[in-house]
Amino acid sequence: MWAQTKIELANSGRGTYDITSSINEQVAKSGIECGLAHLFIHHTSASLIICENADPAVRSDLEAYMLRAVPDGDPLFAHTQEGPDDMPAHIRSILTQTALTIPVTRSSLALGTWQGIYLWEHRHGPHSRYVTVTVQGQ
Amino acid sequence: MWAQTKIELANSGRGTYDITSSINEQVAKSGIECGLAHLFIHHTSASLIICENADPAVRSDLEAYMLRAVPDGDPLFAHTQEGPDDMPAHIRSILTQTALTIPVTRSSLALGTWQGIYLWEHRHGPHSRYVTVTVQGQ
Amino acid sequence: MWAQTKIELANSGRGTYDITSSINEQVAKSGIECGLAHLFIHHTSASLIICENADPAVRSDLEAYMLRAVPDGDPLFAHTQEGPDDMPAHIRSILTQTALTIPVTRSSLALGTWQGIYLWEHRHGPHSRYVTVTVQGQ
Repeated sequence: MWAQTKIELANSGRGTYDITSSINEQVAKSGIECGLAHLFIHHTSASLIICENADPAVRSDLEAYMLRAVPDGDPLFAHTQEGPDDMPAHIRSILTQTALTIPVTRSSLALGTWQGIYLWEHRHGPHSRYVTVTVQGQ
Repeated sequence: MWAQTKIELANSGRGTYDITSSINEQVAKSGIECGLAHLFIHHTSASLIICENADPAVRSDLEAYMLRAVPDGDPLFAHTQEGPDDMPAHIRSILTQTALTIPVTRSSLALGTWQGIYLWEHRHGPHSRYVTVTVQGQ
Repeated sequence: MWAQTKIELANSGRGTYDITSSINEQVAKSGIECGLAHLFIHHTSASLIICENADPAVRSDLEAYMLRAVPDGDPLFAHTQEGPDDMPAHIRSILTQTALTIPVTRSSLALGTWQGIYLWEHRHGPHSRYVTVTVQGQ
């Protein structure tokens, strides 16, 4: 059994957005009990991560870490015409994930207690991002 | 054909642990000859990697690199109540993999000669970690 | 439906190589209309990424960033017998991807407009790299 849908996820600019319930909704709709859910973001300046979902400080620390590791406006970069956050956004995407695959067990995402799925927008401005969700199994 | 099992993997604290044979055992049990094996770790402070499996110095160098890149006790972090290695563990997990998908060919994992599968524990203390292995194919 | 093939991709040393059309060729051959394509590189010093495909400066900036983040000949490393670029190559592989999974929609890879698939060779010398492509779906 296969179910494939493209969903649109709007955001208000750089930061992490919990999309776990949107993905679980697609899993529920698929009717699949046991298998895998695959998420793919169709962009190179936003990415997907699985992150601790209890303390919001984890995600603000993560953002602070990434800002220091891949600084906006770094003089190293030649690709600057779309702004000081554009090349860092591409690198941040490559250092994290464009796709995630998560087990489906008993008709829902088999995430650990402290795991949430986040869309990480790396550009400062608000964006609409497209994610294809493919659920397969039996 | 689908086979899905959750396995428990105990470790003695920060470091990389070769789990290739545990995963190959699940592939053998599944009876699947050609397809894919998917591994998912249900935690946000331990991760999965595919790494060179011949010279142990590769993994100690990797550990040294990560300790420098994401230092324990970094004053940047606000999420510190669970210890100086907790926030670094979350970042190390996000910079590596929560899930791996590996081809299954002729009833076994199609790894390259120098590829091993490792569970990377990022916390200093010993932990029991759960990994769901999903094998599918024909 | 399943189709699994191992392809050989030769390169001329460190850098990123667009392999999108080679992968799309395998998808077309499979006859699969809707599903997933999985790519797996059988090496620990070359990796796979999805990167912006329009401005070549993105990929030269990415290379410059990685060279600064994981310097060749870093005195931190003990695994040096295969040259100053070997241990960095292993780390660069672990910080990026050994495997990619991409949706297949209407018989072709469902990539975003600006997404290309690249093999990233991390060693300075030319290499032949093997990638297994597994396409599944209906």
